[in-house]
Amino acid sequence: MTAEKDRIIDFIKSSIDHYGFEGAVIGISGGVDSAVAGKLLVDAVGRNRVYGLLLPERDSAKTTIADSKLVCDFLGINYSLKPITPLVRRLGVYRMKPPAGIFPRSMQERYAADVWKSTEEPYLNDLKTSGGDANRRNLAYYRTKHRFRMIRLYFEAEKRGYAVIGTTNLTEFLTGFYIKWGDDSTDIEPIMHLYKTEVFELARELRIPQKIIDKKPSPDIAPGITDEFAMGISYSRLDSILKKIRVAGSPDAGIEDEPEEEVRRVREILKTAEYRNIRNLNLLDK
Amino acid sequence: MTAEKDRIIDFIKSSIDHYGFEGAVIGISGGVDSAVAGKLLVDAVGRNRVYGLLLPERDSAKTTIADSKLVCDFLGINYSLKPITPLVRRLGVYRMKPPAGIFPRSMQERYAADVWKSTEEPYLNDLKTSGGDANRRNLAYYRTKHRFRMIRLYFEAEKRGYAVIGTTNLTEFLTGFYIKWGDDSTDIEPIMHLYKTEVFELARELRIPQKIIDKKPSPDIAPGITDEFAMGISYSRLDSILKKIRVAGSPDAGIEDEPEEEVRRVREILKTAEYRNIRNLNLLDK
Repeated sequence: MTAEKDRIIDFIKSSIDHYGFEGAVIGISGGVDSAVAGKLLVDAVGRNRVYGLLLPERDSAKTTIADSKLVCDFLGINYSLKPITPLVRRLGVYRMKPPAGIFPRSMQERYAADVWKSTEEPYLNDLKTSGGDANRRNLAYYRTKHRFRMIRLYFEAEKRGYAVIGTTNLTEFLTGFYIKWGDDSTDIEPIMHLYKTEVFELARELRIPQKIIDKKPSPDIAPGITDEFAMGISYSRLDSILKKIRVAGSPDAGIEDEPEEEVRRVREILKTAEYRNIRNLNLLDK
Repeated sequence: MTAEKDRIIDFIKSSIDHYGFEGAVIGISGGVDSAVAGKLLVDAVGRNRVYGLLLPERDSAKTTIADSKLVCDFLGINYSLKPITPLVRRLGVYRMKPPAGIFPRSMQERYAADVWKSTEEPYLNDLKTSGGDANRRNLAYYRTKHRFRMIRLYFEAEKRGYAVIGTTNLTEFLTGFYIKWGDDSTDIEPIMHLYKTEVFELARELRIPQKIIDKKPSPDIAPGITDEFAMGISYSRLDSILKKIRVAGSPDAGIEDEPEEEVRRVREILKTAEYRNIRNLNLLDK
């Protein structure tokens, strides 16, 4: 993917130059997406023009901060640790959940998994903000976290005349696996055209620390919930089907080789992702 | 504008129905835009399915809360007063400004106006997030306010399965007179296709309280700064020129009748608004 890597670096550089940004801010989560986007960014504008923000909160995994620092050190960038916990607390959202700390992590994880599975189609309900009042309260609760992170990223970026760099990949983008007006709200998205499996491939080429590559991808907003658990399908299966659905020309080329039940599931996710994308419906041009 | 009114009400109703929203949340600011959008919303879904939020903060005008309550009473809706001051304070942004309260309002207003005019092209600098470090800090500061409001609106909306209703009008939309990822981040925008002068027209037809119609439009984020002061042109002049620039067919029909200097200014605002709209630049489809 060397040619692809160079194409992305050129794209970041020309975007920053065109709009006169002085540099760029990126949220480093300890996951592979922000590590890859961060490395491409550093290669594009130089590490002295990149500022990392670590934005953990009460329910973040114990390893989040250490992993994020590992990535920042690998990138060689300046960074700050700015937990969003006080903002989340101020809104009163922690009061909606059992207090952290007094229960062992394993119990918290079991609780989060039970809550997640308490409706029949948890991911589809999430996309539609449905599944009953209790489920809606949970959704409202966790979404604020990514939105507070967005505010913090823009606050630090705009003070410096910097751009905000997003870390959404194509798999997340297509399946609605992001928070509207949260981690999807950025200036530049360097990896939005890459499937998650391609992000991993690029991570290896960019020599991202193995520990980061080996982690199970997780939104890190509720104890123990991984991406694949939330969506109910593995990334390798999901990407394989998504690619076939999206092939141009002969529609759905090769899709008949995929297990019918999984294809049905992915199509349902894609259809339901329409609800995640309700944005500024208006009467312009109507 | 009776036909237009009915068209908007139908649009709101069908959008709410199509996506299965249980109702809608709207931020009531005490200004004419949220009063008009609120009235159309109530006429579309009924006042029992509309929830108003009053989201003032430290620097809001003294009349903001009373005017907002006047609008809510006119609409006959349930509402809550949820000042965002604690969230803004938590981020540390008030520390960047002289404390409120200890200076008389007139002095605060003079200070805000001086800050605003401390760069040569304040509105263009705002659109570009430029004008030096001090100016950038001011911009980063005030933008957080609208973003915190967005978080609060979505938190209350998503708990209830409600939509978030925006109040951006066409004049604001074209000139970039909104906060990116703030008041522009909504589900449904009932008046985004109407110029500000048309919003006033509709306000009279909808019998919005005269006190609200007579107020000078203001973003209400810094003491004494009105929309027209910030943009450096009146709404009637601005809309007159915008309409002529946007006329289809023969381009810029009648624009030669407008004062050259004002037309130049409006064209510069439209061009610079490109910077406000930097969003998720990516390599999809490239």
